Amino acid sequence: MNPVRIIEGIREGDKLPPGSLRSFMEGYLRGEVEEYQMSAFLMAVVFRGLSDDQLSELVSVMLYSGAVLDLSHLPVPRVDKHSTGGVGDKVSLVLAPLAAECGLAVPMMSGRGLGHTGGTLDKLESIPGFRTDLSLSEFQEGLEADGVSMIGQTREIAPLDRRLYELRSVSGTVASIPLIAASIMSKKLAEGLNGLVLDVKVGSGAFLPREADALELARTMVSIGAAHGVATRARLTAMDRPLGRTVGNAVEVQEAVECLRGEGPDDLRTVVVELVAEMIVAAEMGGSAADEHGADRDLESGRERARASLDSGGALERFRRLVERQGGDPRALDDPTRLPQPSVRQDVPSPRSGFVHSVEPVRLGRAVVEMGGGRTRLGQRIDPSVGFSGIVQPGDAVEEGAPLVTVHAASASDARAALSVVRDSVAVEQESGPAPLPLLGRRILPGSP
Amino acid sequence: MNPVRIIEGIREGDKLPPGSLRSFMEGYLRGEVEEYQMSAFLMAVVFRGLSDDQLSELVSVMLYSGAVLDLSHLPVPRVDKHSTGGVGDKVSLVLAPLAAECGLAVPMMSGRGLGHTGGTLDKLESIPGFRTDLSLSEFQEGLEADGVSMIGQTREIAPLDRRLYELRSVSGTVASIPLIAASIMSKKLAEGLNGLVLDVKVGSGAFLPREADALELARTMVSIGAAHGVATRARLTAMDRPLGRTVGNAVEVQEAVECLRGEGPDDLRTVVVELVAEMIVAAEMGGSAADEHGADRDLESGRERARASLDSGGALERFRRLVERQGGDPRALDDPTRLPQPSVRQDVPSPRSGFVHSVEPVRLGRAVVEMGGGRTRLGQRIDPSVGFSGIVQPGDAVEEGAPLVTVHAASASDARAALSVVRDSVAVEQESGPAPLPLLGRRILPGSP
Repeated sequence: MNPVRIIEGIREGDKLPPGSLRSFMEGYLRGEVEEYQMSAFLMAVVFRGLSDDQLSELVSVMLYSGAVLDLSHLPVPRVDKHSTGGVGDKVSLVLAPLAAECGLAVPMMSGRGLGHTGGTLDKLESIPGFRTDLSLSEFQEGLEADGVSMIGQTREIAPLDRRLYELRSVSGTVASIPLIAASIMSKKLAEGLNGLVLDVKVGSGAFLPREADALELARTMVSIGAAHGVATRARLTAMDRPLGRTVGNAVEVQEAVECLRGEGPDDLRTVVVELVAEMIVAAEMGGSAADEHGADRDLESGRERARASLDSGGALERFRRLVERQGGDPRALDDPTRLPQPSVRQDVPSPRSGFVHSVEPVRLGRAVVEMGGGRTRLGQRIDPSVGFSGIVQPGDAVEEGAPLVTVHAASASDARAALSVVRDSVAVEQESGPAPLPLLGRRILPGSP
Repeated sequence: MNPVRIIEGIREGDKLPPGSLRSFMEGYLRGEVEEYQMSAFLMAVVFRGLSDDQLSELVSVMLYSGAVLDLSHLPVPRVDKHSTGGVGDKVSLVLAPLAAECGLAVPMMSGRGLGHTGGTLDKLESIPGFRTDLSLSEFQEGLEADGVSMIGQTREIAPLDRRLYELRSVSGTVASIPLIAASIMSKKLAEGLNGLVLDVKVGSGAFLPREADALELARTMVSIGAAHGVATRARLTAMDRPLGRTVGNAVEVQEAVECLRGEGPDDLRTVVVELVAEMIVAAEMGGSAADEHGADRDLESGRERARASLDSGGALERFRRLVERQGGDPRALDDPTRLPQPSVRQDVPSPRSGFVHSVEPVRLGRAVVEMGGGRTRLGQRIDPSVGFSGIVQPGDAVEEGAPLVTVHAASASDARAALSVVRDSVAVEQESGPAPLPLLGRRILPGSP
């Protein structure tokens, strides 16, 4: 294995001999391929991409560089969901217990917020006492007991991904769809799943705003999953505005609990129900790719099961058991004042009567970070009490002076700064505006165009 | 200075704030930019190139990372020539003393052979005793005494280029015209020149075979030179066949001496005379770009001076003084048997009567390396006695059984192997063949299209 020949092959877009990428990556793990060779390789991939075979070799080495969970003793199918990240995206908090209530096992490993998007772990930890740093055996006990555990990535999972991710972030090589897909899928495939549903955000607040890019990422991930025998499907969902009416940590937990109670905003419920229905269908498909298409009836029956479990309170009870088992205070689910409370709450009044044209998610997400509710670097502590609630949505009719958003802040000066961001982020005009992106966009199944 | 932002800027083809590349390179020299960041940067440059301003910053940091000679006390203009490297390219051996004889100072720093092309230092060192590792003060003494010194790159010159060159060779980032141009020009500008002539090879044996690439490299180097106040011009010359009738080290010295005596093959003499004429014109122009064009009369008068100095024996006497001063045995110039001699000389007979269609320079160059006359890695010792002489040229008429090439080898088995390469490298057909590339191609002056 000559590392320079492999880098040059990728640079020229050549078809490399089978096993070349595997040797290159294994050489890197053994210290025989240098960091400066890997970073040059990664930059060549940014420009040239990878063939399907090359990507599959890469994912396989990343996956087997660490532990791969064997959960085959569980009596029910294991299905997880992954989102590419958005503003106000509290879907996992509702979906994980809901899917478990619908009869699936959900071994969910999530991330923390970084940049303008929040993270599931941070949100969960705003419930007093909640622990996300379970050992792998505690994680399995939760799955066996309640069909759901929610933890952070452990160090045993895909260590090669961790090394590549760190190198990419310091070498300007993050922006590559195959590398993003390989990073996500190597971690998800390590969960030992039967099925996986990918929520790929599209629109201004998404990591990849353009639909074409989101579609390419979705297709790439779906085909990696299928190649590993996991029933994988993706759905594009709108991120041209925040999801739901809250952005922050404690405020999003409160909204998720409302949704689990069968209440809460329509858009959040619609996305959760759809993704759980996809999880149910994926579980029924198992590893088989047979008749993946045209399962509209199954999908509709999945939606009905999901809605019923929300409306019955079953999903909320499942979440309550999860919270208790992971050390959290379940009373916070019934009494939101037991969640971290901000010092200041301040409404932002609408400057005029009319219609909301747009709500800029990136600005609101960054404003939460500015108020201390997110991170600008890894390891930073956050303030779970800050954020936004009661956020209007595009198309809403508002009266002059009525609140567009309620700011939750740690100080009056923070609130003032956030208030000014909200004024710049929410456009209200007299006439009704253009339609936002459809909440549920394209559905991507293995082999779908 | 955020190195990641600069790498991303290059990756996206953005216009960066002035000084960005300077900061990035200076950070690298100070150890603040890591090797893996530099290699990712270099790969991004391979794909995106550099703007003129970026390239100029890069060259300037490379140049001033080391010593820049001040030869302004010399009474005559300092002019050098650089070739991008070819097979049988012994031009420097003739040109340096000839240009000195024509009244210029030639502070020539050359390289060693690597890959299929030979190097001036290796050729010179086949003269018994010849030293190319002079100190900078010995180098200057030679210039003052005889107007010419021929040495290797010293460690004081452009150390940043040395680091980047090594990193490029192990990170698959050699193939970039702006990086090649910056590497060559930073070393040449360190010689403290008034003028510089670039011999850019084109055709199958050239480092960049395609004329469009060779032209782009030529234009890039000429504009860097002009920006640094050095009268720089380039000439494309043919490398679809070897230059002259010899390839190797001792055999090329012998042919160079013949040319210095006013004899030797026409193609070698034509290229040498043309490039020396360009050097004379560049010297007359000095740093001024005024009326760079249309100096045809000056060029023709330069050619006449060059031819006269060859035919008078003046150039050979100048070379003899250079050889003596640098420790070489001048008797080897009069008696070629004093040059290293091969154990075996063997003719390769023509398989038929007809016309030579092509002589493949890369194969012949590699065959010399195979016989021990070149290097496959830095630092390797070479056998100066091996190579090829009497090489036919495209268009030559040959009789069946007449020699196409004489092989000079260290053993009978080496000779056999080389003989088989020659059979594959020289095409002889009954009908006359297509015309080879014109020996002298496009001329590139500052600002020329």
